[in-house]
Amino acid sequence: MQIDETVKCFKSYLERYHAIRMAESLFHWDMQTGNPPEGGQESRAKLVSILGAESFQMTISDEMKGFLDALEPHLNTLSDETKAMHRIFSKKYNEAKNVPAEEARKYFELQAVAYEVWRKAKHNNDFASFAPYLKELVETNKRLIKYRGSDAKPYDMMLDEYEPGMTMEKLDVYFDKMRKTIVPLLKKVVASEKKIDNSFTFRTISIDKQKKIAALVMKKVGFDLNRGLIAETEHPFCLTISQNDVRISTHYYENNFLSSMFSVAHESGHGIYEQNISSEFADTVLSDGVSFGLHESQSRFFENIICRSYEFWQNSYDEFMEILGDDFKDVTPEMFYEAANVVNPSLIRIEADELTYSLHIMVRYEIEKLIFGGEVDVNDLPSIWNKKMEEYLGVTPKNDSEGVLQDVHWSSGLFGYFPSYSLGNAYAAQLLSYMQKDMDVFGNIKNGNVDAIREWLSEKLHKFGSLYEPSTILKAINGEELNADYYVEYLENKFSKVYNLK
Amino acid sequence: MQIDETVKCFKSYLERYHAIRMAESLFHWDMQTGNPPEGGQESRAKLVSILGAESFQMTISDEMKGFLDALEPHLNTLSDETKAMHRIFSKKYNEAKNVPAEEARKYFELQAVAYEVWRKAKHNNDFASFAPYLKELVETNKRLIKYRGSDAKPYDMMLDEYEPGMTMEKLDVYFDKMRKTIVPLLKKVVASEKKIDNSFTFRTISIDKQKKIAALVMKKVGFDLNRGLIAETEHPFCLTISQNDVRISTHYYENNFLSSMFSVAHESGHGIYEQNISSEFADTVLSDGVSFGLHESQSRFFENIICRSYEFWQNSYDEFMEILGDDFKDVTPEMFYEAANVVNPSLIRIEADELTYSLHIMVRYEIEKLIFGGEVDVNDLPSIWNKKMEEYLGVTPKNDSEGVLQDVHWSSGLFGYFPSYSLGNAYAAQLLSYMQKDMDVFGNIKNGNVDAIREWLSEKLHKFGSLYEPSTILKAINGEELNADYYVEYLENKFSKVYNLK
Repeated sequence: MQIDETVKCFKSYLERYHAIRMAESLFHWDMQTGNPPEGGQESRAKLVSILGAESFQMTISDEMKGFLDALEPHLNTLSDETKAMHRIFSKKYNEAKNVPAEEARKYFELQAVAYEVWRKAKHNNDFASFAPYLKELVETNKRLIKYRGSDAKPYDMMLDEYEPGMTMEKLDVYFDKMRKTIVPLLKKVVASEKKIDNSFTFRTISIDKQKKIAALVMKKVGFDLNRGLIAETEHPFCLTISQNDVRISTHYYENNFLSSMFSVAHESGHGIYEQNISSEFADTVLSDGVSFGLHESQSRFFENIICRSYEFWQNSYDEFMEILGDDFKDVTPEMFYEAANVVNPSLIRIEADELTYSLHIMVRYEIEKLIFGGEVDVNDLPSIWNKKMEEYLGVTPKNDSEGVLQDVHWSSGLFGYFPSYSLGNAYAAQLLSYMQKDMDVFGNIKNGNVDAIREWLSEKLHKFGSLYEPSTILKAINGEELNADYYVEYLENKFSKVYNLK
Repeated sequence: MQIDETVKCFKSYLERYHAIRMAESLFHWDMQTGNPPEGGQESRAKLVSILGAESFQMTISDEMKGFLDALEPHLNTLSDETKAMHRIFSKKYNEAKNVPAEEARKYFELQAVAYEVWRKAKHNNDFASFAPYLKELVETNKRLIKYRGSDAKPYDMMLDEYEPGMTMEKLDVYFDKMRKTIVPLLKKVVASEKKIDNSFTFRTISIDKQKKIAALVMKKVGFDLNRGLIAETEHPFCLTISQNDVRISTHYYENNFLSSMFSVAHESGHGIYEQNISSEFADTVLSDGVSFGLHESQSRFFENIICRSYEFWQNSYDEFMEILGDDFKDVTPEMFYEAANVVNPSLIRIEADELTYSLHIMVRYEIEKLIFGGEVDVNDLPSIWNKKMEEYLGVTPKNDSEGVLQDVHWSSGLFGYFPSYSLGNAYAAQLLSYMQKDMDVFGNIKNGNVDAIREWLSEKLHKFGSLYEPSTILKAINGEELNADYYVEYLENKFSKVYNLK
């Protein structure tokens, strides 16, 4: 076959793969938002698992191998698009090709059981019941990694799954910096005399009004509702059917309007990334953000850098007041700004403020390193967890439910995932700094010109979709990869101001 | 391979096929009910078409042929379930295997274009613009049929696609009976002195109240909302994800509550069929009603026989009045009953009453026979249509938009589909008569015991799903296939009473 013909067939094969993946996504959307009948749960799970097996099989099929092998010798002469497809699917193929079907089957079963055990363990504050499953999940992951026949360290390979190119070597430098700067900064903040009163944010606000706030936030940040929609779900998320059909969700709490407001800003950030991928890649496997870390950088950029800035509240104060009404006439833009930036070291990651967030991740990163370095007994994890929480955040869990058992990830075998949350913050600060060379970012926010910011991000990042790896994209902007300095500087500046630190 | 192993692989292959089909269904549900962004339309159409091509390919693949050939010699010893799967997929395979890919591709294109041309032609009352496309659709369908290499008559093969086993020979007998009995009956009704005043049914009723009426109707007829749901769409329909996730929709009109009420009853009938298929067939290709005609028999049974009966209004009058409130206190059960059974020969099929409905279908059947018998020029269809409408219904279209152009079916190449609508009514009356041997049907309706009726239908019909062909199912109940006598008798009895005919 001529190489052009091979490329054409490869792309058509991937289009079929993509269509099945999008069908899986639609089932997830439907299950979260469509209120389908409880009775149909089992069938839907079965249908989704058949579709999942179908798309998975397509990544390790002989046909896939045929394409990858045929294209390999020609990579230098192929388009970036084809190269990217080859890169992504070579990786998927190599990850899974040698895993015996029986081992894969057992792992799926283990995940399902372990998730249920974890749920009960968290509810009953009973780590001991979960420990053997956690151990088995770790051992299985180590075995699965071995099938790849690579010399790389197991945990490096797991990191690479979520953030291509990420390694312990790089993350050690990153988290060392956090430890040396953010931990002491947090101590200063906690010790500062300034106390922020955010009690007004817990006043009752009707869901109708909060929907108006959500619409306002989406408009302000530029989430395009002609090419997207918003729904209500238990947990907020963002899901893509196509770049012109990007769906986000939120959860409204009558007595905590900021929770929904910032979740809308966050999911809008994810959605804006997806909506602004080049239309060249529409309905292909490249029409997706390239990594968990870069995706999170966009949600954090819109949530934290834009919507938690003073300038955002200056700009939108009047519009908020119009919705909130007379009950809020005692609240100034400064009060909104400060309430949005209260620092409160807490036990639970998903409730963490902007300053402490990455410290929660550091605890998890260090423990995952220990686990996959083989230097720890899983039974010791609760005490290790609690010690690290005390050391970095100054708070100690009273029990494992609010400690080592709080997150779902490990029960589903997701090791190496957590760091991408923190990388998102770091990348966002890096992008902010580069952007500031090209424009007055906070001036634009103050003037309501978020379009300029979004366009910059689209041009430098969004449009590429999965075409290039994260480091390639970052280097193309400012010649460097991950660099923690920007993030540290951003946090120091912001929270020194909020808390009047010297 | 051992035959057991072949059967297992065949079933697993069909499970994958079924999962992709259900994904297509979910996309359709989402597009109709999810209000997804206009912007994503093109991608969704593309994704659905890729999934459609995938499932279609699976019906004509070498793998499919391998299964069919391997099972063929063993059919006598295989289970009814495997036999049914073999029957259904042999048919699909034979229908499509010889169609050249290029011919199929052109036909899909033609359908898409013809649909758009038809839409405009209907809007502009311009049959001439649609005529060449209609001609091309007919010619293409004749060619497609030829590829099957069967000796059967083309139109018989088209009928068989929607109603397995149906032929012109059988339908001629059926429609002759209609022509001889229902046409004169209608003339008597029109000439009768009794005029029914149904003006009260056009009083304004809020959508909220109509939703309560919908819930009441679903409860009365036994559509299980623990295993189903209802949504609002432009056109009512029923769609299945699994037997425990059956979805219906309706459209509420503030000034025509009966429209929505009967559409809910109608779609509930379709849904009840799907919900009551044996759980043995859950998530397999047999978990679907077996034919268009039998499906329609269930929607018509619940809509017409049950909900348009006097006994239904006797039983539910109080509950309706509770919802409708004081504005309706002048309305008696008799008035509801009569309003639900007004006969009003009209031009538009989808607005037709129970008595005239099959006459609309007879017009279409006779014309389709002419078309595929090659005895007619498409340019003559408008005048043929109008003459038949005058002859059977006593009304003449003023223009083609309310005549030959009114229905979408032909523009999508759906020839042979219309008769199944009428067969639904005939089957329903047949089933009613059989059922009356086992119970006092209208007594049960009067006493609110629709459960007994639904259970009878489930036992005799629903539970089989697609296991047996329509004629097999009917014969098993009363030893006969389609027999128009029951339907005619039902209509004569009912409308003689409603209109006080001698």
